[in-house]
Amino acid sequence: MKALVYHGPAEKRWESKGDPGIEHPTDAVVRIDTTTICGTDLHILKGDVPTVTEGRTLGHEAVGTIVEAGTGVVDVREGDRVLVSCISACGRCEYCRRGLQSQCTSGGGWILGHLVDGTQAQYTRTPFADTSLYKVPENLTDEQVLFLADILPTGFEIGVKNGRVKPGDTVVVVGAGPVGLAAIMTARLYGPGRIVAIDLDESRLERAREFGADATINSSSREPVGEVEEITGGVGADVVMEAVGIPETFELCCELVRPGGTVANIGVHGKPATLHLETLWIKSVTITTGLVDAASTPTLLKLVAEGRLDPTPFATHRFGLDGIMDAYDVFSDAARTNALKVVLSAS
Amino acid sequence: MKALVYHGPAEKRWESKGDPGIEHPTDAVVRIDTTTICGTDLHILKGDVPTVTEGRTLGHEAVGTIVEAGTGVVDVREGDRVLVSCISACGRCEYCRRGLQSQCTSGGGWILGHLVDGTQAQYTRTPFADTSLYKVPENLTDEQVLFLADILPTGFEIGVKNGRVKPGDTVVVVGAGPVGLAAIMTARLYGPGRIVAIDLDESRLERAREFGADATINSSSREPVGEVEEITGGVGADVVMEAVGIPETFELCCELVRPGGTVANIGVHGKPATLHLETLWIKSVTITTGLVDAASTPTLLKLVAEGRLDPTPFATHRFGLDGIMDAYDVFSDAARTNALKVVLSAS
Repeated sequence: MKALVYHGPAEKRWESKGDPGIEHPTDAVVRIDTTTICGTDLHILKGDVPTVTEGRTLGHEAVGTIVEAGTGVVDVREGDRVLVSCISACGRCEYCRRGLQSQCTSGGGWILGHLVDGTQAQYTRTPFADTSLYKVPENLTDEQVLFLADILPTGFEIGVKNGRVKPGDTVVVVGAGPVGLAAIMTARLYGPGRIVAIDLDESRLERAREFGADATINSSSREPVGEVEEITGGVGADVVMEAVGIPETFELCCELVRPGGTVANIGVHGKPATLHLETLWIKSVTITTGLVDAASTPTLLKLVAEGRLDPTPFATHRFGLDGIMDAYDVFSDAARTNALKVVLSAS
Repeated sequence: MKALVYHGPAEKRWESKGDPGIEHPTDAVVRIDTTTICGTDLHILKGDVPTVTEGRTLGHEAVGTIVEAGTGVVDVREGDRVLVSCISACGRCEYCRRGLQSQCTSGGGWILGHLVDGTQAQYTRTPFADTSLYKVPENLTDEQVLFLADILPTGFEIGVKNGRVKPGDTVVVVGAGPVGLAAIMTARLYGPGRIVAIDLDESRLERAREFGADATINSSSREPVGEVEEITGGVGADVVMEAVGIPETFELCCELVRPGGTVANIGVHGKPATLHLETLWIKSVTITTGLVDAASTPTLLKLVAEGRLDPTPFATHRFGLDGIMDAYDVFSDAARTNALKVVLSAS
């Protein structure tokens, strides 16, 4: 088969590789019908994720069809069309049973395209198939569910649910990339009073409005702290989500939150931030972090099936699976191409 | 009357002052029967709290008797024996109604001995009497309830409740001063699996064991991260409470917490800390801060009345109210005197 293989920082090739097979009774082999590229893949290619070793097939999001299931697989079977989630879950360890599948201690968590070969290939082996694959309802297209593999549950769980968004809240989302937009889209489910998006890029802010933001602040030309104070009558935002991943934006979030409010960090950080405890200790705030658990995936699938959630606007560019090298170019140059998510389909 | 008056950094005097009177219809004037000194008073005397101005009577904890109630006071009356809480609450603003009385926007919050004259005096004026004073059941002594004015609800609300302690949890409390000990005592209410106290001082750790800690780590001679890992089978603590107020101990708490756990900051901080988001972003942790709201005071009073909670061991030294200058000396030299809380009683 062909696969997109990592060969060290800045090196990737679409090349031939042996077909994957069942290694454990709980594995399934999935033929990839549709996959995509994540910002995390770009981080890997920069060399930021040293746990990814040379020869690894990248990718952790897909819709595909099971071609082989191990003898221990019960709930899915050959021929099933499934969503391949970025989170694999053993389903048995203490963390999986508490709904913290990201912290799975039996070899799950974020492993696809990281510690085992991933989904940017014609076939992939998926460990813990029963608890890591989700049957896709027949009437839904691949594009309707593909983004439930990562960005939708990430925005929903780590932004909206950790942030405890509730009716009437003023919600601020700092960073209007795909995950920030997913947070905006899913925050609407909780009936917030107002969603404010902050970004440096005007075209991203335009997207934010399309995805459900009521107001936007371009922080390249306007001062977000004063603006959010003005919007909230001087008190600050109930919930602030960080969807960038740099110290400056995290620290901004801590300034924007109201007393008693929540800062939900979604961003992937490579450096420490300064926590201004000298002002925050008295402010009764909650700060949360997290990697997606994908425990909400069945809920999100249901919302898509019921027409309450439409993730298709994330798909801005389409390629054949063998056009993946071009797709990487388009995705990594999003500032110019305005790409949100690229869709790669097997022919 | 006589009062302990702040005259700028390091300057305080027990001196004559005019008797307080009713200024607003919701005020009450309370004769102080028993009061105490808080670590915060020492901070004020160091000049760390510049919002306290010269001429201010210090103190924000007391048990006393109402000698006059304003025309707008409904639930308490002259002759009632009451607990004077460190938190005054208007009871009407959005924050008070949400149970965040510390953030009261109508002139309440921590004001006694801070923005208005406090309780280290023969009499004090208490604003918002109905929502800031608590009638003391007849069968309870002053010493049984005095520490419900601040340290007990602080440890309980900002440590135990924010930390979401639940049955079976491993709870680590960093700092075994009065507030840390209050957190240990009230954590037991939730049936934790194990409480571990960490401090530099052996006599404080001995107290921690008396107050309910199952294990102690003296961090002057032992390495707490490795010890907590060993105690928890390598995973870390479910709940970690910071009860010191310096960057180093806060950062230690973030190392001690398990994936999915909570760091509850109780300490009063004067400096920022480093938040290691490069490791924490993926760890699914919750960090909370807060000033006590005293919303739990009725609950704690009930627990004392029912014999479930006995705060009297906090009282280590006793003085007459006019011996308050000596009491300050004993309390501020706790490393030598082993003072936890001093009790000052009117004769």
